[in-house]
Amino acid sequence: MLLSGGLDSAVCLAAARAEGRECFALSFDYGQRHRVELDAARLLATSAGVTHKVIRLDLRAVGGSALTADVDVPKDREGLDSIPVTYVPARNLTFLSLALGYAEVLDARELWIGVNAVDYSGYPDCRAEFVRAFEHVANLGTRLGVEHMAKGDGPWFQVRTPLVTLSKVEIVRLGTSLGVDFTLTHSCYDPQIVNGSALACGHCDSCLIRARGFADAGVPDPTRYVAGVKRST
Amino acid sequence: MLLSGGLDSAVCLAAARAEGRECFALSFDYGQRHRVELDAARLLATSAGVTHKVIRLDLRAVGGSALTADVDVPKDREGLDSIPVTYVPARNLTFLSLALGYAEVLDARELWIGVNAVDYSGYPDCRAEFVRAFEHVANLGTRLGVEHMAKGDGPWFQVRTPLVTLSKVEIVRLGTSLGVDFTLTHSCYDPQIVNGSALACGHCDSCLIRARGFADAGVPDPTRYVAGVKRST
Repeated sequence: MLLSGGLDSAVCLAAARAEGRECFALSFDYGQRHRVELDAARLLATSAGVTHKVIRLDLRAVGGSALTADVDVPKDREGLDSIPVTYVPARNLTFLSLALGYAEVLDARELWIGVNAVDYSGYPDCRAEFVRAFEHVANLGTRLGVEHMAKGDGPWFQVRTPLVTLSKVEIVRLGTSLGVDFTLTHSCYDPQIVNGSALACGHCDSCLIRARGFADAGVPDPTRYVAGVKRST
Repeated sequence: MLLSGGLDSAVCLAAARAEGRECFALSFDYGQRHRVELDAARLLATSAGVTHKVIRLDLRAVGGSALTADVDVPKDREGLDSIPVTYVPARNLTFLSLALGYAEVLDARELWIGVNAVDYSGYPDCRAEFVRAFEHVANLGTRLGVEHMAKGDGPWFQVRTPLVTLSKVEIVRLGTSLGVDFTLTHSCYDPQIVNGSALACGHCDSCLIRARGFADAGVPDPTRYVAGVKRST
């Protein structure tokens, strides 16, 4: 299970646990500017009592994104429907590939990822079509995939995406119904650390989409923003 | 272009250059026991005058392989047709995913990888079928892939595998004809460092397949083995 520490991955984790899964959470220390999300991931994993592993991976060596290079994170973007500079090239493919390797070592069959293709930034690697193609390559490129295929078991590895068709409002509602503690989550791409706490900027895509989700769901937004930031959009 | 520093990737690099490609070589410092292959990769890249990048990635955190965990590398395996413990779960998928991200940043269209499905260890992620599935997911999961698809350009990213159907003998012959300096390459999974030089064990799958390739091609084997190791199989 990929666990970034954001709202969606927290709800995804809760959904997997609600289905009775034994979860092994995986996070990536990839040179992201919002590295503080790893603290949130640790808190969420500890709170849920699941195994948590952090893999180091230097995506700054690749660059090409406002999250991994010295490029400003866009603020107050209109529309949110074109792919923004926060897109990290091939990130979910890389993360799923590493999760697949870990799943194979664990002899786990399912990978869970909280991608969402409704209220999102238009990232191509958050769509169901991409996930289905990943499942296919995963089953062709692994020992377990090939062995089960040879036995006639059909595709072995499955990618579970419980949020992919949900709106942000629905994700907030699902999380609420599953008892997710949203105060533990961190979504902001461009946080400020003040007295050891990560405060959300309130203006990046991630903050805007998250705030709108809480507002539209009628759920109080527990996010701690930097001083002077409006809390609703 | 993925450049491990082994024989196959050296020949693959030479093949790409022979086609007039501007190459950007990518290697991974992934916790492999034969990390000395990175020195070979650097030498090969320098010798060819191509840009070379090394990405750090901690696959020891995942484990599950004799190359990334404290498991002995098998020696003098018979048959070489079952998948051995040197298989690293989802390695080529992970490496290709990272190469894809780099290609997108460079605005490059082709990924080159020296996989070979004839004289190999039976790794599932060295087969043409896997590579085709990777191309598909690559084009669905990237900004450039999706944008070119939308313009009706057809699949944008292509994976070039010039060695995939060649035997090791043919790879050695191709490398010879392209002027590859095999003395710069390193293939052994379990090398010994003696006086600063990496000596090949001569008994792991990689050594056995390589030595047989040179022998069958009638090309002198330039590999430096540890003392007392027979040079042909």
